[in-house]
Amino acid sequence: MSELTVWTYDWAPEGPRGFVRDLRLRWACEEAELPYAVRTVPFDGRQTNHLARQPFGQVPFLDDGELKIFESGAGLLHLARKSDKLMPPDPAGEAETVQWTIAALNSIEMVTVPWWFLKICGDADNQLTGWMGQRLDQLEAILREREWLAADRFTVADLLMADVLRVPEVRAFGDRPASEAYVTRVTDRPAFKKAHADQLRLFRAADEQRTDKGRD
Amino acid sequence: MSELTVWTYDWAPEGPRGFVRDLRLRWACEEAELPYAVRTVPFDGRQTNHLARQPFGQVPFLDDGELKIFESGAGLLHLARKSDKLMPPDPAGEAETVQWTIAALNSIEMVTVPWWFLKICGDADNQLTGWMGQRLDQLEAILREREWLAADRFTVADLLMADVLRVPEVRAFGDRPASEAYVTRVTDRPAFKKAHADQLRLFRAADEQRTDKGRD
Repeated sequence: MSELTVWTYDWAPEGPRGFVRDLRLRWACEEAELPYAVRTVPFDGRQTNHLARQPFGQVPFLDDGELKIFESGAGLLHLARKSDKLMPPDPAGEAETVQWTIAALNSIEMVTVPWWFLKICGDADNQLTGWMGQRLDQLEAILREREWLAADRFTVADLLMADVLRVPEVRAFGDRPASEAYVTRVTDRPAFKKAHADQLRLFRAADEQRTDKGRD
Repeated sequence: MSELTVWTYDWAPEGPRGFVRDLRLRWACEEAELPYAVRTVPFDGRQTNHLARQPFGQVPFLDDGELKIFESGAGLLHLARKSDKLMPPDPAGEAETVQWTIAALNSIEMVTVPWWFLKICGDADNQLTGWMGQRLDQLEAILREREWLAADRFTVADLLMADVLRVPEVRAFGDRPASEAYVTRVTDRPAFKKAHADQLRLFRAADEQRTDKGRD
């Protein structure tokens, strides 16, 4: 039995499929060839049904034996310490990887997710648009100069940044060829493709069960 | 000479004084009794004058000897590995501390900062308001049950979460007594008070220099 368990929802609507953040943890496990199991909590009632595991009612969370970790970013940093494939073990490589992991969470996603939220609420030309354009331009300048964000190689920071940038509305916002090539390069990795396909398969199988239940 | 250097601006306007994020790194150094120096980059031209050190044109960044780290969250995690006073050394304590540090950055600040930004842009009743209220309520439920976020003791996660929550507009949003008591408790720490006073003193001294320059 694997000691690593990635927890996600037992089902998700079409929209977020392929983007539910258990994908980040699956992907990291695949990159690092760490064996892992996937278990689920009910999507229905998600705001309150697993608060003991995730105080914001979200997924994913990760078990590593006795350790229990929520926040996909924290799960990624935890997995990164298990494998050189996700983070170089030397102090400089580690510092750079953690730095760009945090940048994905707090300098890029802190703008893209609220922007996206306002956009799907119907406010496409919202007041975060200028700020988002500026941040994405700054990142584009970086990605014009390098293939990977940290330590001259693929790290967990690329996994996370590409996952932040591949959101269709964000990807379609402006023309940033280096960022687009980066997202393509990172998501072309077999580990992403497997994690993505596995997530879609889980939710599709759940569709069938929900249909069966409907027939009872 | 100290090997740790916290970099900030050489001056800041009144509004952000006491909130510029070098305070997070100063505070962590003070808590851990790690000797550190403070150095500055010009506030004027900040969008482009130190992109080689911080690709988003912001402060702070941290030097630790040869290591150079931007993102306050990454700097905090780096400092936390240097001292048990910021993070327990056992795997469970560390995992919990990292988890709540990331939660402050990606579950709370990801909502509060864009909400605050929209508010100061004049959109006080913006569409992030409901989301922010929900997240702060979920955090309030946690803080009703415990004094510190991780490992039953003060950690760098509390330092960061309190710094996120103490923003006046966020603190004044709704009535959440456990969160309010938490912010008071954490910012009552002598290390916060020293870091805060030191930041204010730097920017006030810079006022005088700017006035002197104006006289030339």
